Amino acid sequence: MSRRAHALPPIPRDASDDHSIAPVAARRALWSRAAGADPLHVSGTPVPLAAARGKIENLVGYAQVPLGLAGPLRVDTSLGPRELYVPMATTEGALVASYSRGMKLLAAGGGSRARVLRRGLTQNPVLVYRDARAAERAAETARASLARWRQLVSTTTRHGALSSVAPSVLGRRLVLQLVFTTGDAIGINMAARAAELVSADLEQRTKALARFVHGQDVEKRANARAQIEGRGRSAVADVTIPRAALAKLARTSPEKLCAILDSYRVGFAELGTQNWLVQAANGLAAVFLACGQDLAYVGECATGQLDFAVGERGDLYASVHLPALLVGTVGGGSGQGTAAECLRLMDCLGEGRADHFAEILAATVLAGDLSLMAAFTSHEFVAAHERLGRNRPSGPGKPGKRARRKLRS
Amino acid sequence: MSRRAHALPPIPRDASDDHSIAPVAARRALWSRAAGADPLHVSGTPVPLAAARGKIENLVGYAQVPLGLAGPLRVDTSLGPRELYVPMATTEGALVASYSRGMKLLAAGGGSRARVLRRGLTQNPVLVYRDARAAERAAETARASLARWRQLVSTTTRHGALSSVAPSVLGRRLVLQLVFTTGDAIGINMAARAAELVSADLEQRTKALARFVHGQDVEKRANARAQIEGRGRSAVADVTIPRAALAKLARTSPEKLCAILDSYRVGFAELGTQNWLVQAANGLAAVFLACGQDLAYVGECATGQLDFAVGERGDLYASVHLPALLVGTVGGGSGQGTAAECLRLMDCLGEGRADHFAEILAATVLAGDLSLMAAFTSHEFVAAHERLGRNRPSGPGKPGKRARRKLRS
Amino acid sequence: MSRRAHALPPIPRDASDDHSIAPVAARRALWSRAAGADPLHVSGTPVPLAAARGKIENLVGYAQVPLGLAGPLRVDTSLGPRELYVPMATTEGALVASYSRGMKLLAAGGGSRARVLRRGLTQNPVLVYRDARAAERAAETARASLARWRQLVSTTTRHGALSSVAPSVLGRRLVLQLVFTTGDAIGINMAARAAELVSADLEQRTKALARFVHGQDVEKRANARAQIEGRGRSAVADVTIPRAALAKLARTSPEKLCAILDSYRVGFAELGTQNWLVQAANGLAAVFLACGQDLAYVGECATGQLDFAVGERGDLYASVHLPALLVGTVGGGSGQGTAAECLRLMDCLGEGRADHFAEILAATVLAGDLSLMAAFTSHEFVAAHERLGRNRPSGPGKPGKRARRKLRS
Amino acid sequence: MSRRAHALPPIPRDASDDHSIAPVAARRALWSRAAGADPLHVSGTPVPLAAARGKIENLVGYAQVPLGLAGPLRVDTSLGPRELYVPMATTEGALVASYSRGMKLLAAGGGSRARVLRRGLTQNPVLVYRDARAAERAAETARASLARWRQLVSTTTRHGALSSVAPSVLGRRLVLQLVFTTGDAIGINMAARAAELVSADLEQRTKALARFVHGQDVEKRANARAQIEGRGRSAVADVTIPRAALAKLARTSPEKLCAILDSYRVGFAELGTQNWLVQAANGLAAVFLACGQDLAYVGECATGQLDFAVGERGDLYASVHLPALLVGTVGGGSGQGTAAECLRLMDCLGEGRADHFAEILAATVLAGDLSLMAAFTSHEFVAAHERLGRNRPSGPGKPGKRARRKLRS
Repeated sequence: MSRRAHALPPIPRDASDDHSIAPVAARRALWSRAAGADPLHVSGTPVPLAAARGKIENLVGYAQVPLGLAGPLRVDTSLGPRELYVPMATTEGALVASYSRGMKLLAAGGGSRARVLRRGLTQNPVLVYRDARAAERAAETARASLARWRQLVSTTTRHGALSSVAPSVLGRRLVLQLVFTTGDAIGINMAARAAELVSADLEQRTKALARFVHGQDVEKRANARAQIEGRGRSAVADVTIPRAALAKLARTSPEKLCAILDSYRVGFAELGTQNWLVQAANGLAAVFLACGQDLAYVGECATGQLDFAVGERGDLYASVHLPALLVGTVGGGSGQGTAAECLRLMDCLGEGRADHFAEILAATVLAGDLSLMAAFTSHEFVAAHERLGRNRPSGPGKPGKRARRKLRS
Repeated sequence: MSRRAHALPPIPRDASDDHSIAPVAARRALWSRAAGADPLHVSGTPVPLAAARGKIENLVGYAQVPLGLAGPLRVDTSLGPRELYVPMATTEGALVASYSRGMKLLAAGGGSRARVLRRGLTQNPVLVYRDARAAERAAETARASLARWRQLVSTTTRHGALSSVAPSVLGRRLVLQLVFTTGDAIGINMAARAAELVSADLEQRTKALARFVHGQDVEKRANARAQIEGRGRSAVADVTIPRAALAKLARTSPEKLCAILDSYRVGFAELGTQNWLVQAANGLAAVFLACGQDLAYVGECATGQLDFAVGERGDLYASVHLPALLVGTVGGGSGQGTAAECLRLMDCLGEGRADHFAEILAATVLAGDLSLMAAFTSHEFVAAHERLGRNRPSGPGKPGKRARRKLRS
Repeated sequence: MSRRAHALPPIPRDASDDHSIAPVAARRALWSRAAGADPLHVSGTPVPLAAARGKIENLVGYAQVPLGLAGPLRVDTSLGPRELYVPMATTEGALVASYSRGMKLLAAGGGSRARVLRRGLTQNPVLVYRDARAAERAAETARASLARWRQLVSTTTRHGALSSVAPSVLGRRLVLQLVFTTGDAIGINMAARAAELVSADLEQRTKALARFVHGQDVEKRANARAQIEGRGRSAVADVTIPRAALAKLARTSPEKLCAILDSYRVGFAELGTQNWLVQAANGLAAVFLACGQDLAYVGECATGQLDFAVGERGDLYASVHLPALLVGTVGGGSGQGTAAECLRLMDCLGEGRADHFAEILAATVLAGDLSLMAAFTSHEFVAAHERLGRNRPSGPGKPGKRARRKLRS
Repeated sequence: MSRRAHALPPIPRDASDDHSIAPVAARRALWSRAAGADPLHVSGTPVPLAAARGKIENLVGYAQVPLGLAGPLRVDTSLGPRELYVPMATTEGALVASYSRGMKLLAAGGGSRARVLRRGLTQNPVLVYRDARAAERAAETARASLARWRQLVSTTTRHGALSSVAPSVLGRRLVLQLVFTTGDAIGINMAARAAELVSADLEQRTKALARFVHGQDVEKRANARAQIEGRGRSAVADVTIPRAALAKLARTSPEKLCAILDSYRVGFAELGTQNWLVQAANGLAAVFLACGQDLAYVGECATGQLDFAVGERGDLYASVHLPALLVGTVGGGSGQGTAAECLRLMDCLGEGRADHFAEILAATVLAGDLSLMAAFTSHEFVAAHERLGRNRPSGPGKPGKRARRKLRS
């Protein structure tokens, strides 16, 4: 595992045909050295059927999605300074290249620092009462039940725990905001079980007319609560990049980046969106897919903000705020096959790794947004997609002419 | 291909160990009959490296995610009445089973009817001027340029076309809402090229100070414009389910379903969300992953509403409104490997199939939301996850005791 | 003051010409009896210029807006059961009549019960640091400073106090959510002074690069934080109305009201609004204007939800949730002239009355939304506006023909 | 009326006691000269009771709110360059002074240019059908009915007209977006009548199950449709202010103003608000109250954005975008008493003046936001409220000590 902060080798490429056997093999060798184990499943060894037990019904086989490496990424996480390769699975041409370029920008700033600042999985049961007065009384009961419910929750899980209870009355309905710690798992099944126990206990003690375990359903949707309060893991990543490096590596400047972000914000303001990042959804989806995360969370996890400033001495300060990362390094789809191989490559597999993983994600999102914004300011975006992307001729050779012809898609 | 509306066989299952060779082989045989071709890649044959050209850089191999079948789904699409199996890739236990149960509910109502109602990919360049007066003049120029720009766009694509131009002035900025038809592809690269041409033309003719091709960036984020105006394909699916079938198949009633939806809406109202469905993100992510769609769109595509009503004679009327489906049956990741096999299974591969695919997605989302809401009203949700889900013991045998022990995750 | 819960007389009206001297005098006499003092300023005695000191600059005189009475309103507030008249200033014909009708509906249900459930004025300074690490450290300092800042705030105000401090890191920015109690005043000037002291103290101790006292400016704008967390006073009002009374007084039924609210919610869901009530802004603006409240708060105060249900025995249960009422019975424009007269009429003037006032507002909003929804279900809305509203002929007489002629506005 | 663009005199003030008879009389004399008529009602002459006919029920008298003058405002509207005083009614001390200071900043930039860019009152009836198919058919009928409905609407109003019809299908519901022109009135009663006719016609021709005239109720609530599409009048105002004037008049700089706006936007992004201005609600409420506008619209009208940029030569470019101004210069409360006097003062009374009025409002909002942001950057805000505001001692004399004592409110 790539525990060292000193320089990892660049990812080998073959300019003439990078999707042929030799360069792919070179990259697999690189992976083996970095991870301390061969990426057998990533290389094509089918994952055994039994590995899917408890993860899917009516199994037929496996979906296969191309997987590439971005990086090296230099990032200071809660585990210390690291340098590592980031596996991304996607079919959007130019995406891995864009993130790789962003990681070069981070490295030029000495790497990104990333930290998880808050943890807590919310689940909001709703109970319905005869009238507001009854709901108010139930809210009082709930406020007085934290110790009781902590005990109750402890009977159903070893890894999770109830952190807090915040009841709020909405007419005759009681929204019961429960917050759980979940260890290194997303923990949604644990939270559902716990919320079932807690809300059933309250229902029974307060004579509710009805009860809905996921009553205010924040799960897997972009929403204002997640943006304001955070959900899952809340992470930040930032970096200061020298002006000269920006000019050399990305033909842009701090002022140009601030101007485009300023304009984006004017545009975003009309959108009623909680996703104030540029291409966070792209990077998150690609790493999630590689690492066995639940892709239905992409919309909720892409909540957050990108920020740029012209720093001291004319350098660029850049940060991302990602308040709702729902990720796990144990449980879910993380433990087997290609997912486990990808998590292990970044030292993200298993207990004690969820913060580290969320921090790598934050730095990755920062890299991607920096790279894309830089491409926009230098009007290189369309060109990059034409050079690398789907419109490229299907084989090696002189891309120039054929590319131009093929572009008329 | 499953063109016939008459009854498809149920999906074979093995109660003792459904993740072993025999039941998987039976389902692969079912697939071969339904699709008219063997699902070789789904069954484990690696996709050739060359298939990833133009889709990814720094290729190392392929991510593998378990793939199962839901269905049969009875749906009346713009291609006519169909019955088909829906491939879903996920690691969330109980998900495929939940969608399958929902499809049974649809079938009990004679199947769902689904239709695409609008098509149009928006891209919103922003140009910055000296002051509002200059932006207003540029807006006039833009309004008068539709024919010119249609011609300009036609030089860069055969399959797409510029439908409309709607400029709006925001201080000294001009937001230029362009809407494109994109055939059966998502068409975002085409739209980016076209928006580059159009906005550069306007910049040059109106002396803009700055220009941002994706200036009001709606791409891949949940947003109010997508909810109000639609983006990509806007689809509806509905069904009327007899009261008796609801009781028998899902132990619920129209009144219970209306009551829970009513309570959910009170909860959603506080969330500032554009996703007023229940588990749309789950179904979309699983089918997108099977079918080679871009998973970064899940948050935007999960925009929409679920609606229930007690219909005539006490039956349930249920509908989903999905105004922003960004999907393609040509281009992107759709053409090779497991994606092509999955699309072909539903007769969704290639030209003339994007509406059909979007309609199947809408019916699938309806099935999933029906099933999950029914599970909530009958308090079966947690139980189902314990029986089918990740917490289940990893091998066959007596799940009872071991499941309960394992549940303490 | 109308402390008694037993029946107040109905408001006198003159069917032939209700805007002539006699009926207005009769209502002024009613006011004098109910308030224990004559409404001199409401009746036309100019407010002395000196009363405007500290409230306005460049004083020229007074704006005059027609003021009428709605009621009697039966409401159980935190001061006990009351019956009272509600003064409303407006130029929207039919509005006072609509609220009066709604108050009849409330009375038919035995009156509304209303309660303030939470109090707290938020103010969110933002401090900017060199990078996220510095912002994180400042957040720690802030978390440890509650006692210090409570003491600091106590030097600047007797009536207010600092309740809580919740710092959150957004990139290199620190959003410092301060919550204050403010007694019976809105307290925004006090909060601004206090936030200035607190944020300046933190700035000095943590070497912030910049500081913005109202940095995350929630003031006077509809916003998700106010909806989720509440701001100012959070109030609820509810009532159960017998089915027969609904039919007799408003020609509607619980089922019809639930159906229209259901449809409104489907419509609201697309709007990205925090105002899920029907005409709350109307009632709040009219009472605010009568009672010297700050009208710029109307948009923020109209945050909330309306809820209907068919109750036990087929009656209607109705509630409003108003989480962000920013009102004061001391300070601001409350103490003089027509404002003081109007507050006194409802026993809302001075210390210890802000909860009572907020509760009356909640019951008033409930009355108005009930009445308007009922008018919509019985398709009486347009007719009522034509009969009572601006389109009516300007003098007494045969309204029929002239009204119809005048209607062609 | 103040038609001339050349300099109006400054508003007379008395430094020792500005709320005494002499300075108020001097300002009334100024008003008389500027308006060509005495402000009798503003000066205290009660408005005749009969003037309230059709505007209120259960009339008792008039609410009185202090009214002051801001200005002079230099603004180039669609009627040409003007200089005028802006009447504002408020009890928030320092507000008029703040707007006046902002108007000095505008004047230093040669005045603001303001324009109405779009007009159109939307009203969105909803019709419910048996299923989506029936709703789709009704949508087709609606699309084909524009001419028919224009004719139908013309039978109910002379001043308004139906501009466009945009039906959208939401499950089995049809949202029928109607847009009307309304001349110089807000026109909401006309639109309600017209929507009643149109929706009843469609209901009858398409066999709807239910119909709700205001089904998607955008009225008087902040909402995303108003922000994206505009409602009522959409206006822009901008100005370029020399750097030296900013420094001299407001002790700030373009860079400081851009930095604070940048930070505000980061804060606003979390709020899910449509109001991206600073104190627009204050200015709108004060002018609305003076000019007889409907104060319940304040929340909707305060939708929009503020924008700053460092312009050429280091000057400040500033603009406001106000897409949803619902104002009228005929009808409503505009025609009598203090409202008519205030509108006349700005040449805003009657036909052909609504655009001019909206443009003055936009320039006024720009002035207020400039002044407040400048106060924040120079940390003068709290000081100004203490000097001018409610906490000031109630009489003339030595404010210093007593002010400080009184500040402990």
